[in-house]
Amino acid sequence: MIQSRFDRVLAEMAQTDLSQLLISDPLGIFYLTGIENHPFERFWALLIRSDGKHVLFSNKLFHIPETPLQVVTLSDTDDVAANVAPHLLDGTLGVDKVLQARFLLPLMTAAPAVKMVLGSDCVDNVRACKDETERALMRRASEINDICIEKAAAYIHDGATEQECADYILKCYEEFGCEDVAFTPIVSFGANAADPHHTPDGTVVKEGDCIVIDIGCVKDRYCSDMTRTYFWKKADPRHVELYNIVREANEKATALVKAGIPLCELDAAARDHIAAAGYGEYFTHRLGHFIGMEDHEKGDVSIANHTPAKEHNVFSIEPGIYLPGDFGCRIEDLVIVTPDGCEVLNHVSKELKILGI
Amino acid sequence: MIQSRFDRVLAEMAQTDLSQLLISDPLGIFYLTGIENHPFERFWALLIRSDGKHVLFSNKLFHIPETPLQVVTLSDTDDVAANVAPHLLDGTLGVDKVLQARFLLPLMTAAPAVKMVLGSDCVDNVRACKDETERALMRRASEINDICIEKAAAYIHDGATEQECADYILKCYEEFGCEDVAFTPIVSFGANAADPHHTPDGTVVKEGDCIVIDIGCVKDRYCSDMTRTYFWKKADPRHVELYNIVREANEKATALVKAGIPLCELDAAARDHIAAAGYGEYFTHRLGHFIGMEDHEKGDVSIANHTPAKEHNVFSIEPGIYLPGDFGCRIEDLVIVTPDGCEVLNHVSKELKILGI
Repeated sequence: MIQSRFDRVLAEMAQTDLSQLLISDPLGIFYLTGIENHPFERFWALLIRSDGKHVLFSNKLFHIPETPLQVVTLSDTDDVAANVAPHLLDGTLGVDKVLQARFLLPLMTAAPAVKMVLGSDCVDNVRACKDETERALMRRASEINDICIEKAAAYIHDGATEQECADYILKCYEEFGCEDVAFTPIVSFGANAADPHHTPDGTVVKEGDCIVIDIGCVKDRYCSDMTRTYFWKKADPRHVELYNIVREANEKATALVKAGIPLCELDAAARDHIAAAGYGEYFTHRLGHFIGMEDHEKGDVSIANHTPAKEHNVFSIEPGIYLPGDFGCRIEDLVIVTPDGCEVLNHVSKELKILGI
Repeated sequence: MIQSRFDRVLAEMAQTDLSQLLISDPLGIFYLTGIENHPFERFWALLIRSDGKHVLFSNKLFHIPETPLQVVTLSDTDDVAANVAPHLLDGTLGVDKVLQARFLLPLMTAAPAVKMVLGSDCVDNVRACKDETERALMRRASEINDICIEKAAAYIHDGATEQECADYILKCYEEFGCEDVAFTPIVSFGANAADPHHTPDGTVVKEGDCIVIDIGCVKDRYCSDMTRTYFWKKADPRHVELYNIVREANEKATALVKAGIPLCELDAAARDHIAAAGYGEYFTHRLGHFIGMEDHEKGDVSIANHTPAKEHNVFSIEPGIYLPGDFGCRIEDLVIVTPDGCEVLNHVSKELKILGI
């Protein structure tokens, strides 16, 4: 168990008057205990109690390492609720948002004096502020991403298809020992880039195309996520103008990041810049999302989120302009919030770059 | 919407006195409507009401086709529970087992006159009996599996590693246009096979090794799953004896399958045979599992399941013997239950086969 993380979750619980919290998200349990497990349909949960009587609920079929936690090991024929209920205190129990009805409903019946409420935030708020170990891993995942996006840009050649380029990126990640991708690579040529989530296909790159590459790897469990937009052989002057607007929007938002600034103000800075240039309706998504062990974690950088950025939050800044049937451009970095600004995790230049010349 | 499947679910609901059922499992919704969706954290659910006032809850961000169902389209800022509650009748609501606390708890608050109970069986029992379309797809997925396991056996060569063999199988599936694997291929050489779920690694095949290959593909959404055990260059007479015991256990259980037989009797037939030969303690798992759109579906073929097999149930029969540090053997087919017996979906010979000679 990772005591500093437990302590931070307990502090969040105290703030919301929760004396007990049941966590069933395997990533949440890994975060707090260092124990990895893929429970599939079986019950795997960590009960955190403010009196220190924590319990890890496991199954005979799981292979888990030694732990100082009290472990209750169930078999497939055991009644889960009947085994969990005796460990609960009367009163309120926080459960996490992914706890499934198959466990929650029987537990409500087995523990009628316990009131279940959603308590995920106690873990999510802690996970949103990366500790030193996590920040180092996120730097490394983004360092690999930087290298791979530059390799991908260098790889593109006459006749190259989006799919070939995406496959090449997967090979690069493999060479760096990445265990997975944070999401399926996005490689979009020309008008395909007008769909922010275009799936790479057999489209061949052609002169004048924009090239949007949005990729992320998972290295030692932590995700990277970045986007660069290039051009092939030449760039239409109007596309260059749009590129520069997006780049300025990215830079304006990044310059504002620091602990305490409401996240909506970052979104607004980028959005206002794009709107002032006349393209507001073509920036169709939020500015960014939190990231860590999952590509999308709780917390978004949007006009609706008035929460202030906290030190060591890690999120994306990814403005874009999408003109249906014509063009798309997005420029995305990850940042770590610091007291006075931020550390940008991606170092690949945002200067406009024309490939293939 | 697929009326015959709706009708069967409504009949199950009537049998359990449920007049309304909320399904949130995307596969369950696909099964009943033909609409595929990957909702991730967003709400995506189908309310089935015995009065025919069914409702599909969707989100503006989902791309779903036209449907005769009433569709309620939410946006990310809408309150899910407040939008679902008006469609519920006072009384009991069945919810499916995967409905998450993030939706279930707010819905309980928003609809206090509705009592939530687990109602997954109404769908699971229907899905367990495959209709004609499904049986055809399952035959095809197993046909591909048969071909690929024989190709894999032919591929193994001096110096081959488990991982290479597993990679080769993935390529074979790709050539057949499979969209996915039902599970990560298991290829185990020699003592590695003593772990039924061994992950393929760099182990090189050596003379006298058993070779366990347990693989499954997903083709047109339906899964296959089979195991064969081979030997490399030669086979130790004691291993041959164990192989034959497992093969006989497989055949004994298969011979008993027909509609009406309690599933536990199939497990017992295989288990008793292995135990009588003195290896009962080395058959460490249940005999089989139900399968369809998921590799493991509701329903298991184990000593604990007294439910009778039903016509068109599809499940695995996979006895094994595992000697730690030495040897492992498993032989697995899928079967479709018929009124008088079963249709075995795998046709690869179970004769002992020594490869590399």
